[in-house]
Amino acid sequence: MTLPSPTLQTPLQIARELAAGFAATAVERDARGGTPKAERDALRASGLLGLVIPTQYGGLGASWSETLEVTREFARVDSSIAHVFGFQHLMLATVRLFSRPEQWEPWFEQTARKHWFWGNALNPLDTRTVVKRFDGWVEFSGRKSFCSGASDSEMLIASAVDESAGGKLLIAAVPSARSGITLHGDWDNIGQRQTDSGSATFERVRIEHGELLLDPGPLSTPFACLRPLIAQLHFANLFLGITEGAFAEARQYTLNESRPWFRSSARHSGEDPHVLRHYGEFWVGLESVRLLIGRAADLLDQAWAKGTALGAEERGQLALAIGTAKVAATRHGLDICNRLFEVTGARATHASLRFDRHWRNLRTQTLHDPVDYRVHELGEWALNGTRPTPTFYS
Amino acid sequence: MTLPSPTLQTPLQIARELAAGFAATAVERDARGGTPKAERDALRASGLLGLVIPTQYGGLGASWSETLEVTREFARVDSSIAHVFGFQHLMLATVRLFSRPEQWEPWFEQTARKHWFWGNALNPLDTRTVVKRFDGWVEFSGRKSFCSGASDSEMLIASAVDESAGGKLLIAAVPSARSGITLHGDWDNIGQRQTDSGSATFERVRIEHGELLLDPGPLSTPFACLRPLIAQLHFANLFLGITEGAFAEARQYTLNESRPWFRSSARHSGEDPHVLRHYGEFWVGLESVRLLIGRAADLLDQAWAKGTALGAEERGQLALAIGTAKVAATRHGLDICNRLFEVTGARATHASLRFDRHWRNLRTQTLHDPVDYRVHELGEWALNGTRPTPTFYS
Amino acid sequence: MTLPSPTLQTPLQIARELAAGFAATAVERDARGGTPKAERDALRASGLLGLVIPTQYGGLGASWSETLEVTREFARVDSSIAHVFGFQHLMLATVRLFSRPEQWEPWFEQTARKHWFWGNALNPLDTRTVVKRFDGWVEFSGRKSFCSGASDSEMLIASAVDESAGGKLLIAAVPSARSGITLHGDWDNIGQRQTDSGSATFERVRIEHGELLLDPGPLSTPFACLRPLIAQLHFANLFLGITEGAFAEARQYTLNESRPWFRSSARHSGEDPHVLRHYGEFWVGLESVRLLIGRAADLLDQAWAKGTALGAEERGQLALAIGTAKVAATRHGLDICNRLFEVTGARATHASLRFDRHWRNLRTQTLHDPVDYRVHELGEWALNGTRPTPTFYS
Amino acid sequence: MTLPSPTLQTPLQIARELAAGFAATAVERDARGGTPKAERDALRASGLLGLVIPTQYGGLGASWSETLEVTREFARVDSSIAHVFGFQHLMLATVRLFSRPEQWEPWFEQTARKHWFWGNALNPLDTRTVVKRFDGWVEFSGRKSFCSGASDSEMLIASAVDESAGGKLLIAAVPSARSGITLHGDWDNIGQRQTDSGSATFERVRIEHGELLLDPGPLSTPFACLRPLIAQLHFANLFLGITEGAFAEARQYTLNESRPWFRSSARHSGEDPHVLRHYGEFWVGLESVRLLIGRAADLLDQAWAKGTALGAEERGQLALAIGTAKVAATRHGLDICNRLFEVTGARATHASLRFDRHWRNLRTQTLHDPVDYRVHELGEWALNGTRPTPTFYS
Repeated sequence: MTLPSPTLQTPLQIARELAAGFAATAVERDARGGTPKAERDALRASGLLGLVIPTQYGGLGASWSETLEVTREFARVDSSIAHVFGFQHLMLATVRLFSRPEQWEPWFEQTARKHWFWGNALNPLDTRTVVKRFDGWVEFSGRKSFCSGASDSEMLIASAVDESAGGKLLIAAVPSARSGITLHGDWDNIGQRQTDSGSATFERVRIEHGELLLDPGPLSTPFACLRPLIAQLHFANLFLGITEGAFAEARQYTLNESRPWFRSSARHSGEDPHVLRHYGEFWVGLESVRLLIGRAADLLDQAWAKGTALGAEERGQLALAIGTAKVAATRHGLDICNRLFEVTGARATHASLRFDRHWRNLRTQTLHDPVDYRVHELGEWALNGTRPTPTFYS
Repeated sequence: MTLPSPTLQTPLQIARELAAGFAATAVERDARGGTPKAERDALRASGLLGLVIPTQYGGLGASWSETLEVTREFARVDSSIAHVFGFQHLMLATVRLFSRPEQWEPWFEQTARKHWFWGNALNPLDTRTVVKRFDGWVEFSGRKSFCSGASDSEMLIASAVDESAGGKLLIAAVPSARSGITLHGDWDNIGQRQTDSGSATFERVRIEHGELLLDPGPLSTPFACLRPLIAQLHFANLFLGITEGAFAEARQYTLNESRPWFRSSARHSGEDPHVLRHYGEFWVGLESVRLLIGRAADLLDQAWAKGTALGAEERGQLALAIGTAKVAATRHGLDICNRLFEVTGARATHASLRFDRHWRNLRTQTLHDPVDYRVHELGEWALNGTRPTPTFYS
Repeated sequence: MTLPSPTLQTPLQIARELAAGFAATAVERDARGGTPKAERDALRASGLLGLVIPTQYGGLGASWSETLEVTREFARVDSSIAHVFGFQHLMLATVRLFSRPEQWEPWFEQTARKHWFWGNALNPLDTRTVVKRFDGWVEFSGRKSFCSGASDSEMLIASAVDESAGGKLLIAAVPSARSGITLHGDWDNIGQRQTDSGSATFERVRIEHGELLLDPGPLSTPFACLRPLIAQLHFANLFLGITEGAFAEARQYTLNESRPWFRSSARHSGEDPHVLRHYGEFWVGLESVRLLIGRAADLLDQAWAKGTALGAEERGQLALAIGTAKVAATRHGLDICNRLFEVTGARATHASLRFDRHWRNLRTQTLHDPVDYRVHELGEWALNGTRPTPTFYS
Repeated sequence: MTLPSPTLQTPLQIARELAAGFAATAVERDARGGTPKAERDALRASGLLGLVIPTQYGGLGASWSETLEVTREFARVDSSIAHVFGFQHLMLATVRLFSRPEQWEPWFEQTARKHWFWGNALNPLDTRTVVKRFDGWVEFSGRKSFCSGASDSEMLIASAVDESAGGKLLIAAVPSARSGITLHGDWDNIGQRQTDSGSATFERVRIEHGELLLDPGPLSTPFACLRPLIAQLHFANLFLGITEGAFAEARQYTLNESRPWFRSSARHSGEDPHVLRHYGEFWVGLESVRLLIGRAADLLDQAWAKGTALGAEERGQLALAIGTAKVAATRHGLDICNRLFEVTGARATHASLRFDRHWRNLRTQTLHDPVDYRVHELGEWALNGTRPTPTFYS
């Protein structure tokens, strides 16, 4: 018997096969933390690292909504892998949106051909890495936190503050192996434990001009301003995937393991009115988030297709759609990941199940930027008709 | 300058013009209660009573999603009128789904031509009206509650229990003026005050066989089972319309009348962080409900288009989509209609504004059937994979 | 058989008898609005207008917690009467705390002897009434809103802004019949409909120096700063009373009128699991509020007993206890007054029951000052250890 | 300088000193799991294992409310130790309530003198351990789950089902070292990780008649029925302690480590309106729970003092007070332990802080018995006036 050739599979089919493998070890790897090297290499081998890269550059030519769907497929079983997979595509979007074709085209081609993994060292709120200008190049020096996916990566998107230019943010794409870059491998947090979102140090890292993303540069046009929106929609999608995974595990447990409380008149947990109420409410939450995210993904595809013709108003509407989806995904997700224990019961707290990882992963990732300020931003629109101001977070 | 001829207007444009007129008197009519005769006549004159009737029968040929959109347009300013308008179309669906073409085709034609208003006297849970069988006809006798829109109607859909046939429910379409029918005009409730949802008495009301909806009869096929789903989606849509209207009124008040609390650092209410938070949360709720209802309306259009080819599985998926939308519309709606006072302030309780009518209308109509059992039904699906059992309420 | 002499009844017993009478007409009077003259006269005749006045001045010598308990007894059946009754005692506290014994002692005596009703025309946020100084007297001129209980009162507490003294607030106790005072009787709001909280106009109203509350004056000492706290605890108590009344009515209706939904396996509504869940949650809310209010009332009694020895720290702790109680009373109250319809059902929306009045009354009164800023104030304490700043609202 | 003699310290002072030590290692021990041997020995040495034992038997003679206060003191820093400490006293209550004085008096004396730790192997819902009757003794054989505190204990309370007596539950107090008892040390759950709540196996464990708690036996009188109420109030108290500890840690972090979001106008996190709102809401929740638990503890002291004179009605009122406190403690606790991350921010997810342990501990322990059925029980009272039926869980 022979498996069908991978090239005949759709990206989603490939992702599902990979996800099945990731699922088998997700609990153990959550306990362990660190870099999921084998899983990252499987991603490399799958060709999915070039998912959003157009076919003319050797990629799979997927739309953003397809790319996000694959991310969610991973998130259902392993939200750390889903996060670095999503950030891979966010980094590709970053070079696409902030640099000239002569820059991003080769990067796209090499990424597709060599299965490069891109990591993140762009953190606009961490201003400790600074720029020193030289004739023909610059140097980045300093510390940087929250560098998701930087370990075991081939390329990095890094940022530094140019104090000589009034604190302007310079962003570069550099090989991760470039001299002077140290990744500390110090990510050890309560959730998203295999995202390698630790710190890095840049010691006089030389950056060539051709590696700087200056034209059109960050957040320079409505189209370039899609970058933070892709990040935000990635998060919302990740939250939904985590929640869907938690829901699926809870459901299997309730159906197969739980027993009705001795005061219940139900013979099976699946007939208990209180259990059914929780599941009904979970469903309403999940469906709401699914639709909000689906709508936002469609709008992103449309905005992306417009390219530099994209206007501020359309970009604003997309930002609102994404913000709305993210708030709903955060709140319904935390509710479900917390409450699922009430439909599974005391035995479901056994560490071998690690059902708490859903809440830990979601709780950690939902803090990327405060949901209170996302709500605030939506309030500005709903009340005052003010569109979100483009920043690296909105 | 001349206005465009009404016949060139889309139904939604016609509805908007009507709605503007309804809005001007909605507050006063909420206080008054009773039958909104002038507004009902305006509806008759507008041609919108035949909105869903196919053009071949003289109607406007709108889809269900278009019809629901018009209902919502009315609900934003007057949820009583929206309710009887929606029920008009539910009654038309009832004859379409439960009777033979020889029956419903003339009713459709006459409704379109004569601008008939249809009222409701079908209430399966109120079993006080009973059937007496005669040779060639039957008689309905007894009391009936919650007969929305029966006053000032040309036609009625009425139900009665046939005890000689094991309690079978017989449904008939009869002229409202038929001898023996008394409408008590006794609706006086805290909300939905101009829906005329009072009681009726049937005293030996003669019903011809050709007036009975027997073939295929109620809930006889998945297609016939669309009737309760149209009712439920009508409700969800009504709830959203009420909430959108409440939101719009609150917004205008906050922007134009409210003042920030003296402890706030904001100069205008529109800058107060707590006010913005409420509006942001309102937005997330409204957007969720809008998408859930839009999805359900699309599915209804598809299911309707299938006609008798509609299967139980598709009908079940539609029921779930509608149930989900209704639960979300109920909960977000009540939250917003209650909380809007926290973004408008104490002066917004003045009776001349009647801002409480939004909550009263929504609170009243959301009790049509219990939201707890809708959640329960969704839980049956989410946990056990059980589709909703078709009844007159699901 | 003879009834025990009224003078042998405790104040709470007297209040219960009065409340039974108020209850009989509360629904009708909610519809009518206006001044509850008969009920106000019954209060006068009962002697309860001097409830908190020490016995040496002819009053009933009740503590604040006893006084609040009587207010709550009224609020369970008629929150308008409860409000003006509570404000009667707030006005008495105002003269007691802000004026010299030579001033308040005669007012106390006359109030007890002549059954004076005191109304409110003190509204620090409404600065339209201004002071003009003369030799030996001042004049108040201008408009004033939210003058609860001013109609049909013998005495008024009125405030005006003294622009010649940097906007200082002057407060006076004057006979309501004083020349130049016009009460507009224009209160017509969605709730609290018989509180007469309308507007007043002062036209060159002459105020003698002996009528001004200058020594120690408003908010001058921690003890004087009990005035706003008595107001706030009055509100919390009123909210709880409204909610208890709503709960009691809902319970009677569920037990005696409601029928289980046809999909419920329960034979009586009282056995339905969803109905029981709501009642269980109502109970947790009610009990929480009862204890928070009871604790605050005890602390108020203690603070009052300390008199001018009261320190800022103790006053601060009392403010926090009251603020906490008020937030909880607001939130649980609104939840219960909204949700009660889900345990009574659609028929409970009949206007003859006016079950909506609980929500309307609570919704109206809870807007007196924004709950968001009360929560903010508690946050200042919980996080920063900062005591509430004394103002007329905290 | 000499420290005051330990014997001059109050139990609460002793507990505070111990708690300070426990706090220093709590994070590390949460990671490790297993038996906190050093801490258990410190508890033995402190004399607190006899806290509730009357002084005439050598104990500290504390009331239940004092005992619960000490438990809460521990729970603020280490809820595993708090749990086994609370269960120590629950086991003492068990022998006191279910056996004859000739039985419990020596056990009390030895516990006080020898600092015995008691563990739990009583689990009425786990019916796998059965009784075999012999002449003069019985044997317990079978498996038992959730045996909190059984490891490193001197005494065990064990239960078994006597199938020869219709499934009657026999309860015994036996030395943990008794031949045939195997403790599997297999507790490895997501929270409460050092409670040793794993499984035990009884292999023909011989139980003498004098070790069986038969007179008056379990749940035999209202007084004996205090046993499950002590357990439930212990849980509520534990939940509050966990939440208070979480709140305190979050507060320190917000004040000292958090930075306001870059879109906030606040200079410090402590001035951010959204942060203050969360803290304000936390405060309302905490205060509510503190009062509900305080009231219940007072009622327990009163009920305990009545001894066998305690009536079913008083016992029922206590059950309701405890149930109400437990529901509120569960819900406010989960809310705060989840939301605290929104006031601390992304960096507070670092594993070295283990702030997630509060949620994990609370989430685990709150599943002991379902909160839904506790609410249901309160609903039975609130609606139908039905007192909770005494069982091992209520």
